[in-house]
Amino acid sequence: MVPTLEGSPDALFPDFPKGPLHAYRARASFSWKELSLFLEGEDTLRFKKTVFSALESDPLFARSHGTHLSLEKYRELNFLRCRRIFEYEFLSVEDMFRSPLKMLAFTHCLGMYDWSLAAKYFLHTMAFGSAIYNSGSERHFEYIQKVFSMEIFGCFALTEVSHGSNTKAIRTTAHYDPATEEFIIHSPDFEAAKFWVGNMGKTATHAVVFAQLYLPGGQCHGLHSFVVQIRDPKTLLPMPGVMVGDMGKKLGQNGLDNGFAMFHQVRIPRQNLLNRAGDVTPDGTYLSPFQDARQRFGASLGSLSVGRVSIMCMAVANLQLAVSIALRFSATRRQFGPTQEEEIPVLEYQLQQWRLLPYLAAAYALHYFSKSLFLDLAELQRGLLGGDRSARQAEFGHEIHALASAGKPLASWTAQQGIQECREACGGHGYLAMNRLGVLRDDNDPNCTYEGDNNVLLQQTSNYLLGLLARRDQGGARLQSPLKTVDFLEAYPDILGQRFTGSSFADCLDSAVPLAAYKWLVCYLLRESYQKLNQEKRSGSNDFEARNNCQVYYCRSLALAFMELTVVQRFHEYTHQPGVPPSLRPVLGRLSALYALWSLSRHTAVLYQGGYFSGPQAGKVVESAILTLCSQLKDDAVALVDVIAPPDFVLDSPIGRADGELYKNLWGAVLQESSVLERGSWWAEFSHNKPVLGSLKPKL
Amino acid sequence: MVPTLEGSPDALFPDFPKGPLHAYRARASFSWKELSLFLEGEDTLRFKKTVFSALESDPLFARSHGTHLSLEKYRELNFLRCRRIFEYEFLSVEDMFRSPLKMLAFTHCLGMYDWSLAAKYFLHTMAFGSAIYNSGSERHFEYIQKVFSMEIFGCFALTEVSHGSNTKAIRTTAHYDPATEEFIIHSPDFEAAKFWVGNMGKTATHAVVFAQLYLPGGQCHGLHSFVVQIRDPKTLLPMPGVMVGDMGKKLGQNGLDNGFAMFHQVRIPRQNLLNRAGDVTPDGTYLSPFQDARQRFGASLGSLSVGRVSIMCMAVANLQLAVSIALRFSATRRQFGPTQEEEIPVLEYQLQQWRLLPYLAAAYALHYFSKSLFLDLAELQRGLLGGDRSARQAEFGHEIHALASAGKPLASWTAQQGIQECREACGGHGYLAMNRLGVLRDDNDPNCTYEGDNNVLLQQTSNYLLGLLARRDQGGARLQSPLKTVDFLEAYPDILGQRFTGSSFADCLDSAVPLAAYKWLVCYLLRESYQKLNQEKRSGSNDFEARNNCQVYYCRSLALAFMELTVVQRFHEYTHQPGVPPSLRPVLGRLSALYALWSLSRHTAVLYQGGYFSGPQAGKVVESAILTLCSQLKDDAVALVDVIAPPDFVLDSPIGRADGELYKNLWGAVLQESSVLERGSWWAEFSHNKPVLGSLKPKL
Repeated sequence: MVPTLEGSPDALFPDFPKGPLHAYRARASFSWKELSLFLEGEDTLRFKKTVFSALESDPLFARSHGTHLSLEKYRELNFLRCRRIFEYEFLSVEDMFRSPLKMLAFTHCLGMYDWSLAAKYFLHTMAFGSAIYNSGSERHFEYIQKVFSMEIFGCFALTEVSHGSNTKAIRTTAHYDPATEEFIIHSPDFEAAKFWVGNMGKTATHAVVFAQLYLPGGQCHGLHSFVVQIRDPKTLLPMPGVMVGDMGKKLGQNGLDNGFAMFHQVRIPRQNLLNRAGDVTPDGTYLSPFQDARQRFGASLGSLSVGRVSIMCMAVANLQLAVSIALRFSATRRQFGPTQEEEIPVLEYQLQQWRLLPYLAAAYALHYFSKSLFLDLAELQRGLLGGDRSARQAEFGHEIHALASAGKPLASWTAQQGIQECREACGGHGYLAMNRLGVLRDDNDPNCTYEGDNNVLLQQTSNYLLGLLARRDQGGARLQSPLKTVDFLEAYPDILGQRFTGSSFADCLDSAVPLAAYKWLVCYLLRESYQKLNQEKRSGSNDFEARNNCQVYYCRSLALAFMELTVVQRFHEYTHQPGVPPSLRPVLGRLSALYALWSLSRHTAVLYQGGYFSGPQAGKVVESAILTLCSQLKDDAVALVDVIAPPDFVLDSPIGRADGELYKNLWGAVLQESSVLERGSWWAEFSHNKPVLGSLKPKL
Repeated sequence: MVPTLEGSPDALFPDFPKGPLHAYRARASFSWKELSLFLEGEDTLRFKKTVFSALESDPLFARSHGTHLSLEKYRELNFLRCRRIFEYEFLSVEDMFRSPLKMLAFTHCLGMYDWSLAAKYFLHTMAFGSAIYNSGSERHFEYIQKVFSMEIFGCFALTEVSHGSNTKAIRTTAHYDPATEEFIIHSPDFEAAKFWVGNMGKTATHAVVFAQLYLPGGQCHGLHSFVVQIRDPKTLLPMPGVMVGDMGKKLGQNGLDNGFAMFHQVRIPRQNLLNRAGDVTPDGTYLSPFQDARQRFGASLGSLSVGRVSIMCMAVANLQLAVSIALRFSATRRQFGPTQEEEIPVLEYQLQQWRLLPYLAAAYALHYFSKSLFLDLAELQRGLLGGDRSARQAEFGHEIHALASAGKPLASWTAQQGIQECREACGGHGYLAMNRLGVLRDDNDPNCTYEGDNNVLLQQTSNYLLGLLARRDQGGARLQSPLKTVDFLEAYPDILGQRFTGSSFADCLDSAVPLAAYKWLVCYLLRESYQKLNQEKRSGSNDFEARNNCQVYYCRSLALAFMELTVVQRFHEYTHQPGVPPSLRPVLGRLSALYALWSLSRHTAVLYQGGYFSGPQAGKVVESAILTLCSQLKDDAVALVDVIAPPDFVLDSPIGRADGELYKNLWGAVLQESSVLERGSWWAEFSHNKPVLGSLKPKL
């Protein structure tokens, strides 16, 4: 199919060695090379290959087989690697800010290698750099230059010990002193210490610090951000008045130095206020280009979404790595069989297929979705920077905010559950650290928490949907949005009258069937949530209580179902578009149908409860279609993994290598562990110091 | 309530300091001291207190705040602690083998402190010791003496690199040589290397090795176990012909040295065959006390169950620790509130209650169940050792086997999911290693895999139930079992005719309602699975295929539902028995109802599909009852945690301490981390070696 890309020394698609995985590869219904090109395009594939090859060729990035790094050593190594990334300059600064697809590919590359590295690099360049670029003004752009020459090292300091999700309750203060034209940054007590700040632990010299702005009259103008120097770049020693430290070991991402800081009346120049949304004159007068706080808030939504959409992409990459490992393992691990003599690959078992293949489909569907949302977000950002203050732009911002707020939970939870399933599906070998499933789980885990706790974030999405419905109810506004994700809701009374019509599983083998069911489901949950909310209010709850009491089984389910529908819808359209090569249609259609049905099947109870399903057949038809799709996809599974798995060096899992030599790779890696065959240094404690049984027996 | 236990210097129940948790404690509906006594009894409470106090007073057991142990150091420390346990002799050897409740309490104590320690100690004493005691004969009992004087150190070697679940396919061989009266133990290749063996990595001198027994004629007599010396106790160097090593880092339990071994024609005396189930005479004749293989297999089921029931208890202890941490955190962490000024504890939110309280109820229900099953198992073991070969004893063995085979999956998965929920419910602070939720997750994880993969094990239970039904179908045998867990199935045609009758949530506030629903559910899934299996067979599948194709949605669900029913049933009976003090009835009743309804609610789809539920109300009634029970239990949650949480030293989580001083404890612990305020040793790499942007830029 893609002959021009083969044969040359820098071939994009080197052939895999013929080995234990060959049998499955030979049975695949499609060419993995063709699918790779279709999904990613040649430019992106070449870019990724360049990055991966550079890392693999550089000893600084060598995998630390058998050496277990101490926290200190891992942080040092991660810093050195981060510095080296500047030397490689895979992307120009311009590309980083202007080419979303390249940024996305670059994030995947660094993250698939090690999320600690990606986090360190992007927190410095993007979280710190973008905060200045988006919230500051020209007087701050010198910081951005210094970011890319690494004269300074940055971090983003919002969360405090006692407040994370409730950002309004942040307690660090910034009092303006007109006498010296300085702000005084102060932490009233340790509960207000900045906490969890990536790069702050050991490296950062400068922080974007969020603090409550007070002017001389004593009036508080709310949360603003300031550039605060926290360490001397010459010595990395803390600046006077700054107590800054490292939070120590986390469950994962331990190459990244998360830290804390307390400020004791630290004075910074007036110009260090990032002043795009509000400024203070030398004499202490507050100025804002925004008429009201709501508008100011709206303008800030876009930058909140960047983090969340990026996290979706991170979670998807983790899921891709995990299913790659587990499926290659499953295709080569043999256990039991129809006869004593013949054992079959565990991938041949219905149960193993059902455990893993839906996550493979999810990895495809969510990857496409996160990429498309990333592009939508880039469009939103262009509008913001271009000064677009139209109503459509505002609506666009709200829609993206709603999608990012539920997309992050959906992607991070799917990855969390998928990685756990992959770990278990690889049995004991999945529990061996070298096989990487533990690292993936641990590195993915904070995706559920940072940039907004998943459960709290989902409320943003349900609030958005309920708000649209209320506007329609009250003012007759049409239910619609710039990306059209909510437009179908305009017909919700009609949709609620629909019923499931599939009578055999064959009817369900296309994603159109679950798509229709999802539309009904979202309409149903929206109506139910709306009624429940109004009922709570009528029975005397205030707004705060009413919303809290509608979360479980209502608003939370609504937000997730809406998000799943949106992912299903986009992947359905993508896989059914005319531009899909005929040879790829069957496999892409099956992935789309499997993801849709499998996601939908978690809502079967509600589909019955609300009357969309009735009788025993409806549920069984869906189950039967899921199992059929699994068995149809199992021979394609290895080829589908070949499309999404990075090179072995990056995947870094002996049981997941592309040659499929499961046991040889595993055994080889075990023997590389440090001191594997040596007796313990403490051997004499066994040989020469025998316990006297009961010599310390306590009285009971 | 229990005045005699207070006030004395060794008071069982020291009062908690008045602090941030006091408000919830004051609102509890019951006395936590009374509930502790009711559940555990004074003897067990005193025993646990003795063990915990001894560990807390001994510097060898000091928590390693801020010191991150290397693998080597952790293994050394764990060995030294294990040796010290012998010096304490908290339990006599006699008690360990004869007093199941004490053994259970002891396992909890060591495990709650550190599972690596518990595993090291019990693999040596119980897995190795019991294997010899149960499978060997008097000639082997000298090994047991040497276990308890620590002259030797033991391990249990069954699993190989390429085979775990399929034990029949184990490939290590033991050829008998009558010329020297020796067995020759041999690993044909590295895929047959023993793998994952706990204690083998660095410590064990002797292993119980499972191998295929071959006699001179060449006939294979199947899997047998042998005592093989693998290291010299004087030097801890390997014995000739034994290649033994350490597997390296695992996801958790890294104090335990899991290892591998390959045997190169290693000769051991004939007497080292553990010969209870089969022996070889000096001239090479095979002798067995069992008439047939099935009987021999039946006799071995009991010892398989010991491991699985013990794992249930381990998982429950992990869940207890996790919910203790998360609920104390939730009662003291404040975030948002009805007004800007007042923030409320996150435990007050419906969503947080619904995320955590069902796991608290599960911890209670599963704890009771695992304890009761442990006692049943002890009765079974007494029968076995007493030589009971009655039909009832055989049936008893099968029933315990079925319960242990589904109980381990249920408990380990509930703990896995519960710990993850607790981690997320504590937000970022849950992601900090010192707060211990990560360790609990990692240490609990292998409970899903070892002693039989959860999904594979569930098939044992569904096979048991399907077998009973087939026997009834074919021969008219009554559906019944010694523990009566299956007796209700005798009425299954009647039960299948029942329908859900609850019309308001108030009807569901007692566990009798979900209990009835569960009985219907199990009958339904049994009938469906049976029909599906027969249909598969009729359509030409062989037995192997037919069973494989019935797992998803059928047999797997059946086994889990049956297990949940059994847990619900026992906890219902326990909490409704006349002996429950009136003051404890309400809270125990709520725990029982919440666990039952919450578990049941995961099957709502099937309840609708099969017609037990119909109309929108059925599902809503259950949801409403769950939320009502959560809100009724939230003021009891802290006191319920006080009952199950070990002392702070053992719980070892700054955010979970009994004083509730969340932030002070956290801040104090952070400052104890090593080098927390120091700059990194590699600071000059930042200050003096600046990258040249793009100096290594690759050609794209």
